[in-house]
Amino acid sequence: MIKVYGDSNSGNCLKVKWVCDRLALPYSWVEMNTMKGESRTPEFLKLNGAGQVPTVVLDDGRALAQSNAIIRHLARDSDLIPADAYDAAKMDEWLFWEQNSHEPFVAACRFQMVYLGKPVSDLDPEKLKRGYCALARMEHQLATTRFFVGERISLADGSTWVEAIRRRCRNESALPLHPTRVYPSWASQIVEVGYIRLRSGRGLG
Amino acid sequence: MIKVYGDSNSGNCLKVKWVCDRLALPYSWVEMNTMKGESRTPEFLKLNGAGQVPTVVLDDGRALAQSNAIIRHLARDSDLIPADAYDAAKMDEWLFWEQNSHEPFVAACRFQMVYLGKPVSDLDPEKLKRGYCALARMEHQLATTRFFVGERISLADGSTWVEAIRRRCRNESALPLHPTRVYPSWASQIVEVGYIRLRSGRGLG
Repeated sequence: MIKVYGDSNSGNCLKVKWVCDRLALPYSWVEMNTMKGESRTPEFLKLNGAGQVPTVVLDDGRALAQSNAIIRHLARDSDLIPADAYDAAKMDEWLFWEQNSHEPFVAACRFQMVYLGKPVSDLDPEKLKRGYCALARMEHQLATTRFFVGERISLADGSTWVEAIRRRCRNESALPLHPTRVYPSWASQIVEVGYIRLRSGRGLG
Repeated sequence: MIKVYGDSNSGNCLKVKWVCDRLALPYSWVEMNTMKGESRTPEFLKLNGAGQVPTVVLDDGRALAQSNAIIRHLARDSDLIPADAYDAAKMDEWLFWEQNSHEPFVAACRFQMVYLGKPVSDLDPEKLKRGYCALARMEHQLATTRFFVGERISLADGSTWVEAIRRRCRNESALPLHPTRVYPSWASQIVEVGYIRLRSGRGLG
């Protein structure tokens, strides 16, 4: 059984949970409080020298880190990765974009507001601006295609929607997505095809 | 023929060049000066809505962005991606780590020092600290295995070494790698197996 070391407050960790749930992969969840340094203990650093969650230990005892590398590996034989090579590459484009242009700004601003209680006016203006740019780009893509890569759900949706859906569920006003007609439609699709299991499970932030 | 839109000063762009050169893929290089906003023109935004380089246009006219998604696609049938599923996942782990924990700090600090002429004392202390952490982690891995994923070169080396080798060639003192015995050995291997073509080619920063 896969062992997932994750922090339920982290969108990166919830991605892994989403993929395991959706693909019905048996796993156990080890809750890690990163704010208390639990990912920096000598024992944990043996699993992941970067001291980050999520980290998984696979059935054979070997460890793997980085949320998108993990979900790419767990979903490697599933329809969450497009069979067409170009479509798979476009999925990868979104996954890397999510890590360098979305998560560092959208999730970082959300963290400051939701967990540290800061108002928008106290956020780093550059991070805020880039967060809004990332959200606008998602909107733009979803105005063109049903999902991020064409007409079928893929890891690209799983990687970006966790943060989005979390805001929707909590009615968070922090960094709202632009109020167009596009995003609600996409979110509904995600709910329909893959969200129910996560909602009833442990760890939904 | 593949068309690569890239800025020769960008390690992310040089990665694509390295893979094309190493795999002998025919390509043309379109030099983009991002400092002058050339990646933000309406024409370019049609290719990549994120306005980022590198962006490639493949033989069939379709575009692809994000350096690591590009090299993963171009190298998909080559030995730069391990055949073993777990090893490929470990390669992906390094690729995603490079984008969220290495490039935003190491390359950002280097840019400030090399192109804007700032001394170390003017850098963001948090970015500097995280840059050194990233370099230390590379050293730690290379003390264990010959390359980032075991004993064979992969895209994980290509993705991280461009910045490293550039410093070595220029004798840059900015953000030096920690002076252990490990890094020079790895760099020599990289030079031996894949660097010569890049050195003699266009666009080495």
